[in-house]
Amino acid sequence: MIETRRYSVTGMSCGHCESAVRSEVEQLPGVAGLEVSAETGRLDLTLTEGAALTDEAVLAAVDEAGYDAARQS
Amino acid sequence: MIETRRYSVTGMSCGHCESAVRSEVEQLPGVAGLEVSAETGRLDLTLTEGAALTDEAVLAAVDEAGYDAARQS
Repeated sequence: MIETRRYSVTGMSCGHCESAVRSEVEQLPGVAGLEVSAETGRLDLTLTEGAALTDEAVLAAVDEAGYDAARQS
Repeated sequence: MIETRRYSVTGMSCGHCESAVRSEVEQLPGVAGLEVSAETGRLDLTLTEGAALTDEAVLAAVDEAGYDAARQS
Protein backbone atom coordinates (compact mmCIF):
# COMPACT_ATOMS: atom_id res chain seq x y z
CA MET A 1 0.00 0.00 0.00
CA ILE A 2 1.53 3.23 -1.20
CA GLU A 3 1.29 6.05 1.31
CA THR A 4 0.89 9.64 0.20
CA ARG A 5 0.95 12.68 2.41
CA ARG A 6 0.40 16.36 1.90
CA TYR A 7 2.13 19.08 3.87
CA SER A 8 1.62 22.83 3.66
CA VAL A 9 4.79 24.88 3.48
CA THR A 10 4.80 28.62 4.16
CA GLY A 11 7.30 31.15 2.88
CA MET A 12 8.31 29.67 -0.46
CA SER A 13 8.27 32.41 -3.08
CA CYS A 14 10.02 31.01 -6.14
CA GLY A 15 11.58 28.04 -7.86
CA HIS A 16 14.77 28.43 -5.86
CA CYS A 17 12.73 28.00 -2.70
CA GLU A 18 11.11 24.87 -4.12
CA SER A 19 14.56 23.48 -4.93
CA ALA A 20 15.86 24.21 -1.45
CA VAL A 21 12.96 22.31 0.12
CA ARG A 22 13.16 19.51 -2.41
CA SER A 23 16.87 18.94 -1.93
CA GLU A 24 16.42 18.51 1.82
CA VAL A 25 13.31 16.33 1.75
CA GLU A 26 14.48 14.04 -1.04
CA GLN A 27 17.36 12.92 1.14
CA LEU A 28 15.00 11.38 3.68
CA PRO A 29 14.79 7.59 3.74
CA GLY A 30 11.56 6.24 2.30
CA VAL A 31 10.80 9.08 -0.12
CA ALA A 32 9.63 7.61 -3.44
CA GLY A 33 8.02 10.72 -4.92
CA LEU A 34 8.04 14.41 -4.13
CA GLU A 35 6.22 17.44 -5.51
CA VAL A 36 6.91 20.88 -4.11
CA SER A 37 5.09 24.00 -5.28
CA ALA A 38 5.80 27.57 -4.22
CA GLU A 39 2.60 28.64 -5.93
CA THR A 40 0.30 26.39 -3.92
CA GLY A 41 2.52 26.05 -0.86
CA ARG A 42 2.10 22.30 -1.02
CA LEU A 43 4.53 19.47 -0.55
CA ASP A 44 3.17 16.14 -1.75
CA LEU A 45 5.07 13.10 -0.68
CA THR A 46 4.84 9.50 -1.79
CA LEU A 47 6.52 6.94 0.43
CA THR A 48 8.04 3.63 -0.46
CA GLU A 49 6.18 0.60 0.88
CA GLY A 50 6.84 0.07 4.54
CA ALA A 51 8.68 3.37 4.99
CA ALA A 52 8.90 4.50 8.59
CA LEU A 53 9.28 8.19 7.89
CA THR A 54 7.84 10.39 10.62
CA ASP A 55 6.18 13.76 10.14
CA GLU A 56 8.76 15.18 12.53
CA ALA A 57 11.55 14.16 10.16
CA VAL A 58 9.79 15.76 7.21
CA LEU A 59 9.10 18.98 9.12
CA ALA A 60 12.71 19.08 10.32
CA ALA A 61 13.97 18.72 6.75
CA VAL A 62 11.76 21.59 5.60
CA ASP A 63 12.95 23.64 8.56
CA GLU A 64 16.53 22.88 7.56
CA ALA A 65 15.78 24.44 4.19
CA GLY A 66 14.53 27.54 6.00
CA TYR A 67 10.75 27.12 5.83
CA ASP A 68 7.87 26.10 8.04
CA ALA A 69 5.60 23.19 7.25
CA ALA A 70 2.61 21.40 8.71
CA ARG A 71 0.98 18.08 7.91
CA GLN A 72 -2.20 18.57 5.91
CA SER A 73 -3.42 15.12 4.94
CA MET B 1 37.93 57.58 -9.37
CA ILE B 2 35.66 54.82 -8.15
CA GLU B 3 32.68 54.18 -10.40
CA THR B 4 29.35 53.09 -8.98
CA ARG B 5 26.30 52.08 -10.95
CA ARG B 6 22.77 51.15 -10.09
CA TYR B 7 20.66 48.70 -12.04
CA SER B 8 17.04 47.74 -11.47
CA VAL B 9 16.33 44.03 -11.51
CA THR B 10 12.82 42.66 -11.89
CA GLY B 11 11.53 39.30 -10.73
CA MET B 12 13.69 38.62 -7.68
CA SER B 13 11.46 37.41 -4.86
CA CYS B 14 13.76 36.09 -2.16
CA GLY B 15 17.27 35.62 -0.89
CA HIS B 16 17.83 32.70 -3.23
CA CYS B 17 17.11 35.01 -6.14
CA GLU B 18 19.58 37.55 -4.78
CA SER B 19 22.22 34.84 -4.50
CA ALA B 20 21.60 33.65 -8.06
CA VAL B 21 22.09 37.18 -9.40
CA ARG B 22 25.05 37.84 -7.15
CA SER B 23 26.89 34.68 -8.13
CA GLU B 24 26.68 35.57 -11.82
CA VAL B 25 27.56 39.26 -11.53
CA GLU B 26 30.43 38.81 -9.09
CA GLN B 27 32.27 36.75 -11.70
CA LEU B 28 32.52 39.74 -14.04
CA PRO B 29 35.94 41.37 -14.35
CA GLY B 30 36.17 44.73 -12.60
CA VAL B 31 33.55 44.14 -9.92
CA ALA B 32 34.85 45.48 -6.60
CA GLY B 33 31.58 45.67 -4.70
CA LEU B 34 28.09 44.32 -5.19
CA GLU B 35 24.79 44.73 -3.37
CA VAL B 36 21.69 42.92 -4.56
CA SER B 37 18.28 43.34 -2.96
CA ALA B 38 15.13 41.42 -3.82
CA GLU B 39 13.16 43.83 -1.64
CA THR B 40 14.15 46.97 -3.53
CA GLY B 41 14.92 45.30 -6.85
CA ARG B 42 18.25 47.09 -6.92
CA LEU B 43 21.70 45.96 -7.92
CA ASP B 44 24.41 48.36 -6.83
CA LEU B 45 27.79 47.86 -8.36
CA THR B 46 31.16 49.33 -7.50
CA LEU B 47 33.87 48.93 -10.11
CA THR B 48 37.62 48.73 -9.67
CA GLU B 49 39.55 51.68 -11.01
CA GLY B 50 39.84 51.60 -14.75
CA ALA B 51 37.44 48.70 -15.15
CA ALA B 52 36.04 48.39 -18.65
CA LEU B 53 32.86 46.55 -17.72
CA THR B 54 29.97 47.28 -20.07
CA ASP B 55 26.32 47.51 -19.14
CA GLU B 56 25.68 44.81 -21.71
CA ALA B 57 27.92 42.41 -19.79
CA VAL B 58 26.12 43.17 -16.52
CA LEU B 59 22.69 42.77 -18.07
CA ALA B 60 23.78 39.50 -19.70
CA ALA B 61 24.99 38.16 -16.35
CA VAL B 62 21.67 39.02 -14.71
CA ASP B 63 19.87 37.39 -17.64
CA GLU B 64 22.03 34.30 -17.15
CA ALA B 65 20.69 34.12 -13.59
CA GLY B 66 17.16 34.26 -14.97
CA TYR B 67 16.17 37.87 -14.37
CA ASP B 68 15.81 41.12 -16.29
CA ALA B 69 17.74 44.25 -15.47
CA ALA B 70 18.13 47.81 -16.71
CA ARG B 71 20.69 50.50 -15.96
CA GLN B 72 19.31 53.05 -13.53
CA SER B 73 22.15 55.42 -12.70
